[in-house]
Amino acid sequence: MGLTLYSMPSSGNSYKARLLLAHLGLPYTHVGMEYLTPELDAAHGAGTLPFAKLPVLELDDGTRLPESNAILCYLAEGTDWLPADRLDRARALAWMFWEQNQHEGVIAVRAALLTYPHRAHLATPERLAELLDRGNALLAIMERRLAGHDWIATQAPTVADLSLYAYTHSAEEKGGFDLGPFPAVRAWLDRVARLPGHVGLTDIPA
Amino acid sequence: MGLTLYSMPSSGNSYKARLLLAHLGLPYTHVGMEYLTPELDAAHGAGTLPFAKLPVLELDDGTRLPESNAILCYLAEGTDWLPADRLDRARALAWMFWEQNQHEGVIAVRAALLTYPHRAHLATPERLAELLDRGNALLAIMERRLAGHDWIATQAPTVADLSLYAYTHSAEEKGGFDLGPFPAVRAWLDRVARLPGHVGLTDIPA
Repeated sequence: MGLTLYSMPSSGNSYKARLLLAHLGLPYTHVGMEYLTPELDAAHGAGTLPFAKLPVLELDDGTRLPESNAILCYLAEGTDWLPADRLDRARALAWMFWEQNQHEGVIAVRAALLTYPHRAHLATPERLAELLDRGNALLAIMERRLAGHDWIATQAPTVADLSLYAYTHSAEEKGGFDLGPFPAVRAWLDRVARLPGHVGLTDIPA
Repeated sequence: MGLTLYSMPSSGNSYKARLLLAHLGLPYTHVGMEYLTPELDAAHGAGTLPFAKLPVLELDDGTRLPESNAILCYLAEGTDWLPADRLDRARALAWMFWEQNQHEGVIAVRAALLTYPHRAHLATPERLAELLDRGNALLAIMERRLAGHDWIATQAPTVADLSLYAYTHSAEEKGGFDLGPFPAVRAWLDRVARLPGHVGLTDIPA
């Protein structure tokens, strides 16, 4: 039976899990559920998604684990992707909590307003301008770290890099951000994308 | 030198760290920084706060760790507050990421709009009504879990309980939520508050 991933093909949060599964070389069954589809409605109706969000990782025994970053930590346990050292692990977690509390709510939300038709009515000029300013301040925090370090949390790539890559890599194309003023962020994006085993957002198992 | 906690006395995120430090019986130096004070301005100016947020835990060697939930995981490592079992640990993390991605951005934000004078101009009736509806949906997710379990993530209290307690315990008083329809959440709040070593939001070391 193995692992099953319920994921939204267009979503960065879901992409995080697909990206780490590819890096780890773990086979899994992919169940795609896009916004505003009968499949997603049915999953909500059946209570398949514990927090009514995607992705959800289903284990062998039927246990369903929600939250993209918790899925990353679960899958990475015992591998180099999650540091064994207590402080390094906490550093990775700090960036991942920041990603969910700050980064995703601004950078992913701006992209969602600009790309999902059912969000378009919320994309007022004032809201888009506010999210642009806040997003640039968040990118500046990443730039300060990455100007002196190859990886976001420790001396080696961790789940925190994958977590932050998911929505940062599409911040220009989908979110309308200009990464020009953030050269260290751009170099880091290239570095993550060149890691062996990397897959793109749309490289989804059949 | 020991541990130093930079924390905001009025903030639930800061309270999380103070609460676990009390449970663990760890001595620490408390540096309080309230909103709109010269102390907080000075910390921002000096770059003391890595993500420009509180709390921040400073270790013996001067390392500064941000993010309330990462601080909880760091301090709890090797104790019963952070499960050693891989899946139970992931379950605790899932609730903590959800807390930062969903719960805090709604339940704490509504409380902030109603209690911090400098946020009052953002507290429009429409915004307050939207946050009330969204908060009730989030409390319903907690209620479903707690109706059948004593603790939020596993069979025993974990850092996830402390994390979610921080803003849920003041949701009525500060956030204007009605916990009447959520009896399992109310029973769980009592259960957390009766744990040996518990301290309140305002029980701050001198």
